[in-house]
Amino acid sequence: MKRTMSALAENKPGVLAELAAAFGKSGANILSLAAGETENPGVSRIVLRLEGDDEAIDAAELCLRNLDGIIGIDDLSRKDFVDRELVMIKIAMSPQSTGQLMQIFEVFRANVVGMGQETITVELSGDQERIDGLIQMVKPYGIKSMCRSGMIALKRGDE
Amino acid sequence: MKRTMSALAENKPGVLAELAAAFGKSGANILSLAAGETENPGVSRIVLRLEGDDEAIDAAELCLRNLDGIIGIDDLSRKDFVDRELVMIKIAMSPQSTGQLMQIFEVFRANVVGMGQETITVELSGDQERIDGLIQMVKPYGIKSMCRSGMIALKRGDE
Repeated sequence: MKRTMSALAENKPGVLAELAAAFGKSGANILSLAAGETENPGVSRIVLRLEGDDEAIDAAELCLRNLDGIIGIDDLSRKDFVDRELVMIKIAMSPQSTGQLMQIFEVFRANVVGMGQETITVELSGDQERIDGLIQMVKPYGIKSMCRSGMIALKRGDE
Repeated sequence: MKRTMSALAENKPGVLAELAAAFGKSGANILSLAAGETENPGVSRIVLRLEGDDEAIDAAELCLRNLDGIIGIDDLSRKDFVDRELVMIKIAMSPQSTGQLMQIFEVFRANVVGMGQETITVELSGDQERIDGLIQMVKPYGIKSMCRSGMIALKRGDE
């Protein structure tokens, strides 16, 4: 199964290494990880998408809670979060396929960020379903290169 | 100084831990890290934004190149890359400030993704300058919560 967690961590060298090592031991695989700055310069937020059986993920979460430098953890599976991901995709393009591709980009409201002789590069931010939807639609044209940010999330409402 | 690198890594447990440990030893601090899937299910792309003196970052890069599981590294400072970052910000809102905030969101083309009694949450994807610009503009209103994805990047052109 897959689960997503958000951790607040002290922004100091070594925290990420300890976190990744803890997961390595647990047997849970990290599908994606996004670590970035928060409203507080001393604190960074790490959002992890994990894959593994329930036991492995529970073990990983327990390790994480006990780590020095981790301030708090939220389980994002509880669905009271707005989640978003960013993707950039470079797609093969020919004069014949340009029109079709442009229509797909319009439907998904993806932005063209670059164009070459034989490729076109778009960006899209959205929830996982929307991102996966765009990827499925453009796959038949040939994906030359792709970069996903990993999921980021904030609590819904005022909290 | 700050530098950004993009690494292609085998998608297997432990690689991220080794990478983070290598950086811990080098003395370079990881400002942000985005690890996500690529067009190839066996390969993940890790984009790192690093801070430290030149020697520390060079040492970290060398460690990285020698790591088992790392397929290749690009230095994104060379500027032939399109880079993007995603941010979500929850901002304090009062009836008096709503109009001003909405104007800021329109200028930056930021999307409102959530609204509470006292806060409004927006997302924005763009280059670092645009993201930092929005953050500076909304800071005086009160940032309640913020999550940044870390930079992702693809080569410009067809390559």
